[in-house]
Amino acid sequence: MQLPERVTVYEVGPRDGFQNLARFVPTDSKIAFINALSAAGLPAIEATSFVSPQWVPQLADAREVMEGIERGQGIRYPVLVPNLTGLERALDTDVREIAVFTAASETFNRRNINATIDESIDRFRPVMARAASMGLRVRGYVSTAFGCPYQGDVDPGAVVRVTGDLFEVGCSEVSIGDTIGVADPAQVHSVVAQLQRHFDLGGIALHLHDTYGRGLANVVAGLEAGVRTFDSAAGGLGGCPYARGATGNLATEDLVAMLDQMNIRTGIDLTALVAATSALAASTGLRMPSRAFEALRAQQRALIPA
Amino acid sequence: MQLPERVTVYEVGPRDGFQNLARFVPTDSKIAFINALSAAGLPAIEATSFVSPQWVPQLADAREVMEGIERGQGIRYPVLVPNLTGLERALDTDVREIAVFTAASETFNRRNINATIDESIDRFRPVMARAASMGLRVRGYVSTAFGCPYQGDVDPGAVVRVTGDLFEVGCSEVSIGDTIGVADPAQVHSVVAQLQRHFDLGGIALHLHDTYGRGLANVVAGLEAGVRTFDSAAGGLGGCPYARGATGNLATEDLVAMLDQMNIRTGIDLTALVAATSALAASTGLRMPSRAFEALRAQQRALIPA
Repeated sequence: MQLPERVTVYEVGPRDGFQNLARFVPTDSKIAFINALSAAGLPAIEATSFVSPQWVPQLADAREVMEGIERGQGIRYPVLVPNLTGLERALDTDVREIAVFTAASETFNRRNINATIDESIDRFRPVMARAASMGLRVRGYVSTAFGCPYQGDVDPGAVVRVTGDLFEVGCSEVSIGDTIGVADPAQVHSVVAQLQRHFDLGGIALHLHDTYGRGLANVVAGLEAGVRTFDSAAGGLGGCPYARGATGNLATEDLVAMLDQMNIRTGIDLTALVAATSALAASTGLRMPSRAFEALRAQQRALIPA
Repeated sequence: MQLPERVTVYEVGPRDGFQNLARFVPTDSKIAFINALSAAGLPAIEATSFVSPQWVPQLADAREVMEGIERGQGIRYPVLVPNLTGLERALDTDVREIAVFTAASETFNRRNINATIDESIDRFRPVMARAASMGLRVRGYVSTAFGCPYQGDVDPGAVVRVTGDLFEVGCSEVSIGDTIGVADPAQVHSVVAQLQRHFDLGGIALHLHDTYGRGLANVVAGLEAGVRTFDSAAGGLGGCPYARGATGNLATEDLVAMLDQMNIRTGIDLTALVAATSALAASTGLRMPSRAFEALRAQQRALIPA
């Protein structure tokens, strides 16, 4: 197997995880969680979203979170913004990186943001211009790149096109998302190979979900195909909004435990990561679907004398 | 990716799954579950174990299960036997295939069956002779092939040696087990490559656990390395006996859903499989850790008008 020495883990739990929970996580718990993730060595933590609180009430405290966290040296704290209004709200805080989102499925885009893919890219232009003027780095998300809850199959050509559009308007990194967790390793390999014909894979991330237990299988396919950045959520936070009861994001613990075992460096301290997620579970009562989190916690409990 | 057209799924839920539960599943539920798995097209269902009921009270009803199930045409119903006493008990029923077990870790064998690896092989000889005289097919298990809860690392050379011993005493298939779920895809690839230097991979199965969420990632590594038979448990039944609270066997639903998606045939009807596991969950109240089971059930519930 051709494997890299090092991989970048991009943490999405505080944004993508909390956003998909039925309940509101208290601001103090969010801030403590992000601080603990920073202490565990996560190099990039998507901290919150400046989408309208009407749409995502779970993250209505975006400003308080950005003002409350302690920033670790060299750690990125990007925030999601949907439009210029969101960017202006974000700019009221000390934000240095943002993320914008569109999808590879026309049906999904129409239902999610009431725009065609092209319209969504056009809407980014003023956001990108303002971000550039403020010296912000911008990440782009391509949702439903491997399958759509409405239209089913998604054309890999559409993934390549929209990725190119996002680079063209000024994104420095594009994250290719398996929003509903239906990708399989052969498909990941094939889509990444098509992306590689057009783009430097150094600018490509994979955003995988574990809905069907294929998260890590798809990571390995991505690694073998040359991807070096993977999104994940501590604890496996965040349900799947299209199948209530099903699991959402790939868990950071599962990802880091596997990479550690394969001697692929991430700079993340797995024990400190488990402690961060444990503290969140304790303060909120949230159930964490991560397999590795559960196994490592069970081991730690076994080590404590009764 | 080099992938096969067809894979054999060897179902271990009724044995390895039930054996590791804290509670006794009623005999009627076991029989109904095995019958439903047969109806779903599983080609091989390890039905129970004739280990002493003192050691595994969860399967004390082995005889009743073997006498109660309806056998589907062409379906194998192997049973686990530890020794000649167990084999004689099994032979009181209509058994046509058995499975014997040892481990690649000396420490594990000593603690699990109070024997060295060589002693465990020697103990099989009379079992194999009696099985041969009755025309039974025999499968061998090599536990802790990728890591041991007591000694940690396991030498791949030991895996090759014990696999050779099992073939030599007359096993027609050897299943290489990641008992505690610590294998990673690079390691699976490497161990299978070493096995391939000595044996036809047609006789090798992989028995993977999902303790750290790496079950399917390891399946893909095994597929790419040339393995064509994979063990799994419907619903992901069975905890990990070495880390309470952690997940056990790779789930058959996760495996079949991925193989279906990759156009690799198994002959299994995924909808009927989910129905079999749903019925077991309903009759016993057992929680099923399988990701795909949960997601597919959630989808089915969404399709039923409220």
